[in-house]
Amino acid sequence: MGKTAVVALGGNALTREGQAGTYEEMEANANAMARSVASLMRAGWRVVVVHGNGPQVGNLAIHQEEGTKLVPTQPLFSLGAMTEGELGSIIVMALRRMTDGARSRGAVAVVTHVVVNPDDPAFDDPTKFIGPFLDKEQADAMAAERGWVVKKDSNRGYRRVVPSPEPVAILEAAAIRALVEQGQVVVAAGGGGVPVVRYPSGFGGIDAVIDKDYAAQVLANSIPAEALVLVTGVDTVLLNYGTPEQKPIHEMAVTEAEEYLATGQFPEGSMGPKVRAAIRFLRSGGEHAVITSPELVYASLKESVTELEGETGTKIVRVRPLIAGM
Amino acid sequence: MGKTAVVALGGNALTREGQAGTYEEMEANANAMARSVASLMRAGWRVVVVHGNGPQVGNLAIHQEEGTKLVPTQPLFSLGAMTEGELGSIIVMALRRMTDGARSRGAVAVVTHVVVNPDDPAFDDPTKFIGPFLDKEQADAMAAERGWVVKKDSNRGYRRVVPSPEPVAILEAAAIRALVEQGQVVVAAGGGGVPVVRYPSGFGGIDAVIDKDYAAQVLANSIPAEALVLVTGVDTVLLNYGTPEQKPIHEMAVTEAEEYLATGQFPEGSMGPKVRAAIRFLRSGGEHAVITSPELVYASLKESVTELEGETGTKIVRVRPLIAGM
Repeated sequence: MGKTAVVALGGNALTREGQAGTYEEMEANANAMARSVASLMRAGWRVVVVHGNGPQVGNLAIHQEEGTKLVPTQPLFSLGAMTEGELGSIIVMALRRMTDGARSRGAVAVVTHVVVNPDDPAFDDPTKFIGPFLDKEQADAMAAERGWVVKKDSNRGYRRVVPSPEPVAILEAAAIRALVEQGQVVVAAGGGGVPVVRYPSGFGGIDAVIDKDYAAQVLANSIPAEALVLVTGVDTVLLNYGTPEQKPIHEMAVTEAEEYLATGQFPEGSMGPKVRAAIRFLRSGGEHAVITSPELVYASLKESVTELEGETGTKIVRVRPLIAGM
Repeated sequence: MGKTAVVALGGNALTREGQAGTYEEMEANANAMARSVASLMRAGWRVVVVHGNGPQVGNLAIHQEEGTKLVPTQPLFSLGAMTEGELGSIIVMALRRMTDGARSRGAVAVVTHVVVNPDDPAFDDPTKFIGPFLDKEQADAMAAERGWVVKKDSNRGYRRVVPSPEPVAILEAAAIRALVEQGQVVVAAGGGGVPVVRYPSGFGGIDAVIDKDYAAQVLANSIPAEALVLVTGVDTVLLNYGTPEQKPIHEMAVTEAEEYLATGQFPEGSMGPKVRAAIRFLRSGGEHAVITSPELVYASLKESVTELEGETGTKIVRVRPLIAGM
């Protein structure tokens, strides 16, 4: 049996900057994405795909708001479940198209629930903007009617803001493992998964958004997978981003990555969670962690596994055998 | 390993007559439904749940229409995928609550794609009404703009009408089988599954609605499951429905059922597809087929398997050992 890689992709890999989010756009983007996955599979990897859902759940929230006069609006966590169905279907169809001939017995999307801690400090300090922009009056009305926390987001207006708690466990981990063992490519924890907490009556949904890179890490350690690949818009992590000293990092040890994080090298809104997810994965027993662009997924992971020295994505490693050129 | 039962429930088991379709309503109904499933599991059955999505996909279609000015509307088959996420999540959470202590390693919802034949005659004669009622002007506009087929539905107005083709195969059958073998309760083929056809580039979605009882039958034979339980609003199938000669049937042989179908005993909109699904299941190798209410699922299946004679639901059997009282 081959090794397993969990590959985490942003929701903007499916609806790109400037796109409206039509089905056709998402389908074409999913096809492109499925090609990188197919290259991994041909090299013998078993793959689990975790996808984001930011643009898609945003559109769904707009639909829901507009239709509210006529039929009930569903809670945010349930819109998350809907996007697991919507995007899971699109990605599975694309994987079936692109992995024909690769070593796979099929592709399957699992509606995934991710346990969070109700005492997570994130619940006292919501930070994640979601859904459409509102004017001040609409924002006040939503806060009064539905108890939303609404904050100003840049100069474009007000938006709902929700907690982004840490993922603790994946309810469907055993099912996902069984499917991977059976040879399926599995799409799971879409949008970070449906957040649930344990109430006295059992697990139930809670309105929050789990970071999909953190969810991918918890899933990767639960399976357990050998590799975690965090896909982003750039080929490598950059040091001193936006300054004249900006430079790509092709390899960093966990301790180096922790130091960079502590000194504010990686902003929380973008590279920070990816680097943190990579560190946690390795510290919890993972073998290979890579941060790179869709185009370099295959090459970077190959380099990482074979311990080739190359110039592709960013490998995060437990220990660096040789500190060169620092 | 225990025997497997595929249990098919209507979407109106989740949003009941007169309910608007709030999350809380669906959650409470799912809890009730999960209790019948738990009773089967305690008796050693492995269970796959297939659910309808009529009321829910209808609400989603209304949301989508209202939001169309702002963000793209997704195709009908993709709304079906969304309800597989939405209802799959609700049902899985309910199953986890209610099957605590039953023999289960967990519950999991699989986004399921069902292959249909593009030459199915249903595509030339759409019969399934979906989505909101429209006035004549709106109906004509939708027909012109989007190529919808729109027909008058009773006296309440015009509605979109879509084909209801026969399910041919379940793309995720092997994955569902693997999960059942692993001891999971599986929620699959929700709303009859996302209808797909094989295009030259691979499988892709098509706007249609697959009857969920037929999809449940194809899935049951694919696994293969020993039992197919078709859950409906009444305890038994009724002969001479609505006449002074109306009477419940507690057992019928496949050949009898075929005769009743041929003589128009079972209307196409309601009992017809259930009786036909039961017949097909038995003729394709299935062992036990039952049509009954949620309350009698456990008792009817027990009676069917043990060949007890009772007065619970309707058993359809390959051969009747004794034709009594006809």
